[in-house]
Amino acid sequence: MVSYQKKYIAYKSRVDKRLGRCMSKQEPVSLCEPVSYILSGGGKRIRPLLVLLACEGVGGTVEQGLPAAVAIEILHNFSLVHDDIMDHASTRRGRLTVHKKWGESVAILTGDELLGLAYRELLRTKSGAIGRIVEIFTDGVIEVCEGQAYDKEFETRHDVTLLDYLQMIAKKTGKLVSVSLELGAVIGGGSAREVRALREYGTHIGRAFQIQDDYLDIVANEEEFGKRIGGDIVEGKKTYLLLEAYRRARGDDKKLLHAIMMNGGTSRRNVPAVRAIYERHGVLASAQKEVAQSIARADRELKILKPGPAREMLYWFSEMLANRNF
Amino acid sequence: MVSYQKKYIAYKSRVDKRLGRCMSKQEPVSLCEPVSYILSGGGKRIRPLLVLLACEGVGGTVEQGLPAAVAIEILHNFSLVHDDIMDHASTRRGRLTVHKKWGESVAILTGDELLGLAYRELLRTKSGAIGRIVEIFTDGVIEVCEGQAYDKEFETRHDVTLLDYLQMIAKKTGKLVSVSLELGAVIGGGSAREVRALREYGTHIGRAFQIQDDYLDIVANEEEFGKRIGGDIVEGKKTYLLLEAYRRARGDDKKLLHAIMMNGGTSRRNVPAVRAIYERHGVLASAQKEVAQSIARADRELKILKPGPAREMLYWFSEMLANRNF
Repeated sequence: MVSYQKKYIAYKSRVDKRLGRCMSKQEPVSLCEPVSYILSGGGKRIRPLLVLLACEGVGGTVEQGLPAAVAIEILHNFSLVHDDIMDHASTRRGRLTVHKKWGESVAILTGDELLGLAYRELLRTKSGAIGRIVEIFTDGVIEVCEGQAYDKEFETRHDVTLLDYLQMIAKKTGKLVSVSLELGAVIGGGSAREVRALREYGTHIGRAFQIQDDYLDIVANEEEFGKRIGGDIVEGKKTYLLLEAYRRARGDDKKLLHAIMMNGGTSRRNVPAVRAIYERHGVLASAQKEVAQSIARADRELKILKPGPAREMLYWFSEMLANRNF
Repeated sequence: MVSYQKKYIAYKSRVDKRLGRCMSKQEPVSLCEPVSYILSGGGKRIRPLLVLLACEGVGGTVEQGLPAAVAIEILHNFSLVHDDIMDHASTRRGRLTVHKKWGESVAILTGDELLGLAYRELLRTKSGAIGRIVEIFTDGVIEVCEGQAYDKEFETRHDVTLLDYLQMIAKKTGKLVSVSLELGAVIGGGSAREVRALREYGTHIGRAFQIQDDYLDIVANEEEFGKRIGGDIVEGKKTYLLLEAYRRARGDDKKLLHAIMMNGGTSRRNVPAVRAIYERHGVLASAQKEVAQSIARADRELKILKPGPAREMLYWFSEMLANRNF
């Protein structure tokens, strides 16, 4: 049996190596330092992996997919740097955020430079469909911005529905996952059906990933998860769990959830009570069901691909996503 | 005689019309409002004009060049929105800046969205060379960021030379001018020689424009210029005039200029004294000479273009630039 974990690490190290070469220049120091800092700061490199697997899955090679894989990772880092400013986040991947370390002006400019570097890397793709490739990528840039705008709007809106939330995360986090797979498929020379199937696979796993993320906030093992349980509740984040529980609850339960949303959060000592509400109304179970359903839908899309190691690894990937507890 | 002013206004109105359609969506409101605000806030639309003239100058049409012309203007506005945050600017074109009106988070995201929209517009260009077109544009994005990084670094550096300054402005403002002309030339199907000539024309007028800007800060008619004379001196901006005067001055003159640079500015009542130093050391005259030389170099590049109305209008444009007092 192939060790997919090993294969993943091998892909990741190729991506990391190429990322390290993206910022070979030394000047201007005020820009090159933070760019190198963020690009070398680790990360699971999941999006690049998906570009490469999609590319291989339709008959392309890792070499063909590598520039786009790296471009997607740079684009992802661009959004992290700018979102961290907007969210006043102090740490990221266990280190200071760019704006905490160098100030907001530098962080704004670092994000902008990353976006430029992402396009430069993408343009190194050898393909007769470069116009289409840049277009898919650009749609990703725009949707990620729009998703972030909705996310910020939701912080102060009190009428957010579960549907609003699902549409927002589809843009903010799902889009870049489906763009990764679509890009890989186009670059690898996939047929229209293959490109569509891989893009849809991405849409479904992107959604599964986010709902699992919401779920883990309340049930994860704190040590493995790397952060304290219930953070979303304390911050009053309108997650799948909170919105679905609010829809189902009545009486005092609804009152408490309403208060959390209106006040933009609650004290940490309320976390167990909220968890009890979630359990009472079955939203933890339905989150798990949503994840399982999305993964099943994702896997169904893969059926039309030619059987082979890339397709097998995509099955492995969605399976892993469904069962992750970190 | 053709009225170039009329022709310019006609081009401008086509660009403005198309810019107005860029943000036809209404949601997310928090993003669409500021994007429309900045794109409809006026501006001379000089870069789009140059794209269109370069395109026509090599035998292309306005229709062909229009998407890139609009893309360059959106890119320019992206950099204005983000630079205004970094520079803590309160007003722009007589209105509140985006971050003053909506806050910094919205302004960061607005800039990001503009960059995505600029690429989307650029991709509407009908050309067999779309990969090259996106590459030229991307080089522009990256250099503008780097130029801004140098500009911010220079604010706190005390060893900036005239050469450093010229290199910085070539990136920060010159690059987008030369990119405009290069894009227009490539889209219009220009030969390698024509593309090169138009790009160089852009480099030279970009430099002339910036030095003229520095010059006007001290000699312009306040009413026509729209701002108070000597602002660069008060802010201690390391301009062509200040750096060249510092290089030439000795004794008390040098001491005063040194103090301005070290303190990052000076009181408004010192403006006449600094102006006197500039005159004593002939830096106003040499700024004018530099501008005239750059314009002459720019015009020489145009010689290889086929004679015609677009080339004539480019001559008119550089002439106007050299003599502007606003």
